[in-house]
Amino acid sequence: MKRVLLTGASGFVGRNCIGPLTTLGFEVHAVSSRNADGDPAATWHHVDLLDASLIPALVRDVRPTHLLHMAWDATPGKYWTSIDNLRWVASSLALFHAFADCGGKRIVAAGTCAEYEWRGGICREEETPLVPATPYGIYKHSLRLMLDIFCKQAGLSGAWGRIFSLYGPGEYPQRLVAYAVRSLLAGGEMKCGNANLIRDYSHSADIAGAFVALLESDLAGAVNIGSGHGVRLGDILLKIGDLLDADKHINLNARPPDAAGEPETLIANTERLASTGWKPKFDLDSGLADTIAWWRQHPGH
Amino acid sequence: MKRVLLTGASGFVGRNCIGPLTTLGFEVHAVSSRNADGDPAATWHHVDLLDASLIPALVRDVRPTHLLHMAWDATPGKYWTSIDNLRWVASSLALFHAFADCGGKRIVAAGTCAEYEWRGGICREEETPLVPATPYGIYKHSLRLMLDIFCKQAGLSGAWGRIFSLYGPGEYPQRLVAYAVRSLLAGGEMKCGNANLIRDYSHSADIAGAFVALLESDLAGAVNIGSGHGVRLGDILLKIGDLLDADKHINLNARPPDAAGEPETLIANTERLASTGWKPKFDLDSGLADTIAWWRQHPGH
Repeated sequence: MKRVLLTGASGFVGRNCIGPLTTLGFEVHAVSSRNADGDPAATWHHVDLLDASLIPALVRDVRPTHLLHMAWDATPGKYWTSIDNLRWVASSLALFHAFADCGGKRIVAAGTCAEYEWRGGICREEETPLVPATPYGIYKHSLRLMLDIFCKQAGLSGAWGRIFSLYGPGEYPQRLVAYAVRSLLAGGEMKCGNANLIRDYSHSADIAGAFVALLESDLAGAVNIGSGHGVRLGDILLKIGDLLDADKHINLNARPPDAAGEPETLIANTERLASTGWKPKFDLDSGLADTIAWWRQHPGH
Repeated sequence: MKRVLLTGASGFVGRNCIGPLTTLGFEVHAVSSRNADGDPAATWHHVDLLDASLIPALVRDVRPTHLLHMAWDATPGKYWTSIDNLRWVASSLALFHAFADCGGKRIVAAGTCAEYEWRGGICREEETPLVPATPYGIYKHSLRLMLDIFCKQAGLSGAWGRIFSLYGPGEYPQRLVAYAVRSLLAGGEMKCGNANLIRDYSHSADIAGAFVALLESDLAGAVNIGSGHGVRLGDILLKIGDLLDADKHINLNARPPDAAGEPETLIANTERLASTGWKPKFDLDSGLADTIAWWRQHPGH
């Protein structure tokens, strides 16, 4: 019996993990601090993991064989520098410890491309220097160092998925693709200050699918979770404009860049991820079309 | 009013911090998991910090302005690879968080020379690569990364003392100097497999004094805590033999080296520490004499 404890299960990526996990035969125990009317394919546990004292009982109750740890603070405009990152590290350590204590076998946890040095380019797990430029990146980097060594010590199998850029249905409205789609659907203008940045964008369902494939594999250590392809932010917006027949409302480079100091290019090398056999379901065109269709159906979200 | 919460207060270094703290006018709140009949100059709190749920109430109760965090597992033969290192990181994060929440101003915590790459030589805080070779070193390194950024985020002043080698009264009997002194006092033989390793040895009271000086200063970031001088382990033993008139019982290189992979030389550059104005009270001769005198008075310790 494969029984997975999925944290962050009502989050942007986490909620997309439940389907693929079920397909692979996992009994899914989904944890969320929100009172979500979540996917009935999972058993839901309404627990705020930031209260680490609740973790041992939760893990003893579920006795998972697998842990897919997606929970973290990802609030736009806040998470890069949030002091809650420290509390998430502490809760993650408590979770790993309780999981090992209860006989768990494999951990996969969510990391970030922000662990890499902000010099940009194509990031390789075992080559690109790990010199995070942000508090978020430093906390994730520290947790990954500890997860690696803890897994060796406790005799667990462990991997760490470094998420690159993403978009998809139900994204925070402040984030690039959601903001663009919603602005243009409402007949407004879309301004962008970072049109020339090149990023590696994936649909949230693909990011989730990649994490589930990683969990099912026996790959150890850090694994980039991305498409392996770079795209200019301006070109994403023009594609959205095309799909909505609203090109003329897109104003690239209309304001100064938002994020000084960010690298011009940030692309995942995905050889390790590809070794799991996993392939994305969406390319950028079909992924954006799917996302636009969702926002058309959920205008007030 | 300067009020310090001192963790690990009955430990090998911690117990030597109380005197210098009191001298500097600190109200000392000493935390220990042991039921120690500790120094009456401090107010003692009998709390096991590995139960992180006890930390917020302890910190709220004391409301310290300063935190001197020395607690960790240092059991010989165990701490290099102990899985408890993970729990100490989690408790340390809870402590930092509670300290900031209660209005604390300055944190100093204990790190280790094992954070440095095991290539050896003279270690400088801002130059020597941080590539720890041991689980203990990795956990300490991770915690330091997080403490640095947390202090910036929370508006605290923070420093991190990297302890090099040490000896002194009441040391664990398995450790080099204690083992040599006790063996020779008992008329036995002292065998050493690492006579040619060069280390930076300080008396535990000096290590403690350096931490207190660091706490009182406004130095931020990592600071080496050592003497700045290297000494051959064989020469330490010969000095002990001399002081005990038992040279002939010392058998250097009588067995294969104990710790394969350890660097030949590991010495602290102490420029940052010296900038606090602090100076050691003991040189190696007077420190060993002090230690031997203590063991003569405590043969059954």
